[in-house]
Amino acid sequence: MRRCKICQKEAVVFFKSHRISLCEEHLKSFVEKRVKEAIKSHKMINRGEKILIAVSGGKDSLSLWQILTNLGYEADGMFIDLGIPGFSQESWEKCEKLSRRLSRKLFKTSLEEIFGMNLLDIAKLERRVPCASCGMIKRYIMNNFALKNGYKVIATGHHLDDECSILLGNVLNWQVEYLRRQDPSLKEENGFVRKIKPLVLCSEEEIENYARVMNIDHVGKGCPLSKGATSHFYKSIMNQIEEKMPGTKLRFYKGFLKIKKDTFGDEKPAELKPCIRCGYPTTAEICSFCRLHERIKTKISQQNPEKMEEPLS
Amino acid sequence: MRRCKICQKEAVVFFKSHRISLCEEHLKSFVEKRVKEAIKSHKMINRGEKILIAVSGGKDSLSLWQILTNLGYEADGMFIDLGIPGFSQESWEKCEKLSRRLSRKLFKTSLEEIFGMNLLDIAKLERRVPCASCGMIKRYIMNNFALKNGYKVIATGHHLDDECSILLGNVLNWQVEYLRRQDPSLKEENGFVRKIKPLVLCSEEEIENYARVMNIDHVGKGCPLSKGATSHFYKSIMNQIEEKMPGTKLRFYKGFLKIKKDTFGDEKPAELKPCIRCGYPTTAEICSFCRLHERIKTKISQQNPEKMEEPLS
Repeated sequence: MRRCKICQKEAVVFFKSHRISLCEEHLKSFVEKRVKEAIKSHKMINRGEKILIAVSGGKDSLSLWQILTNLGYEADGMFIDLGIPGFSQESWEKCEKLSRRLSRKLFKTSLEEIFGMNLLDIAKLERRVPCASCGMIKRYIMNNFALKNGYKVIATGHHLDDECSILLGNVLNWQVEYLRRQDPSLKEENGFVRKIKPLVLCSEEEIENYARVMNIDHVGKGCPLSKGATSHFYKSIMNQIEEKMPGTKLRFYKGFLKIKKDTFGDEKPAELKPCIRCGYPTTAEICSFCRLHERIKTKISQQNPEKMEEPLS
Repeated sequence: MRRCKICQKEAVVFFKSHRISLCEEHLKSFVEKRVKEAIKSHKMINRGEKILIAVSGGKDSLSLWQILTNLGYEADGMFIDLGIPGFSQESWEKCEKLSRRLSRKLFKTSLEEIFGMNLLDIAKLERRVPCASCGMIKRYIMNNFALKNGYKVIATGHHLDDECSILLGNVLNWQVEYLRRQDPSLKEENGFVRKIKPLVLCSEEEIENYARVMNIDHVGKGCPLSKGATSHFYKSIMNQIEEKMPGTKLRFYKGFLKIKKDTFGDEKPAELKPCIRCGYPTTAEICSFCRLHERIKTKISQQNPEKMEEPLS
């Protein structure tokens, strides 16, 4: 029987990367401590700031909600219903369940309400993989909602494995501009609220175990539309490296953050101006979201001419 | 039947990374052209310079010898006999064979002659994996031999897969100083001759096929002492990525060379001074080679006291 390194009670988990066995209680404090460390060292949250968490119903964002609440932060959830059959409804229910347990507000909007169609239809119309539009849409909606409702910070459930996967892709292609921008805390500016990733020092395995011992009910499978995504492939590559050389993920990511500024330089601020339609910061005249909205509107009006007079938003 | 993209004859090979099928003749010119390109774009060889190739008996260094000769360069071989049972003798014979075919000089030295013991014994004495001492020893011997015999350039058979493997390791650990120094052409300075890697734009697969169609007899297996080396693991990782996303290796390596200087800055010249024993450039008072030599001498003299009076070198 493995014993907890801290208290010698029976361990429920062994983390190879840290060579540590932990009991339920100390697994919980282990994860929460790492989140606290990330928040502190990247100045993610100022005293008294309300946080809006982008919750998807998966283990990562729901664990984040639990952890931030346990750490004493005021964090509410925002769920965007993508309208994916057999997935979005269950995802929403998991979010609702945790919202009740934590007694925190949970907001909801849906692509159907906004665009009159779900993500699958949008992807078809755009002739791109769903992920390509999904990220942009979610960022837009989250930012707008936060601005209008007094949230200073948006938190997402990206963890160490997500960040390593992004980092590996950026490095293999030497995307210097993306490397400059890859940060666990993107400060507020130009109409964007601050965006933070408090789980970046926790691996997926750690979060998975946290969710388990905290009884966080969540959707078990990832988004069915992202199957075959490059990010999954990079994660499997990083997992192989981690398996052979435990500790590599954390070294890769923390090492990057350490040398980032000196090596890749300061992020060059993009020349952003407000979208002439909606005011969202954009490099173009009309932002990507409004352009998508317009394409969808045109499509719908072609299919149902009687709807043509409907206003854009 | 696949047909050669250039001449429509029957193809002998298909390179997925370049989506190209080639016949024997055009495979040959394909590889030689890439070597020419690397030599030119990294200013590897000046007109009339004699080149010393570090030949091991493997496909890479022997192909390099063949290619440089075909391209009209005066390239001689230097073989260092590491004394590995069941490997070094055969390796030597392969080098000799090509030397005769090319009518080029082939030099030989051995660790036994220099140290009175082979690489295995040295590794045992040093209590390190053989690779740890082997690289340093070979670099020292090659450089010294080149300096004394009028060779301005040392060429090694490192190819794209070798460089990607090194690069991946350097990036995962953010070894900024190593990244600064990783270059296909290290210029002569401070008692070092120029060191070049003309195969860096060719993948291992390309070289393997080149050796085959050129009938270059070579040892089929890699060094038996390097089994389990990290470099092999990184290569297998890069191969998986290449398989999934053909062209990644070349993009990763060429992209690195492109952003290297602006990103990682100029190499900080190490403060080198001549070794007080042998004159080899070193950051210490006595160079690593002489220190190793000394440790070996001490060991031997402890075992055979009558040999104690023998001079160091």
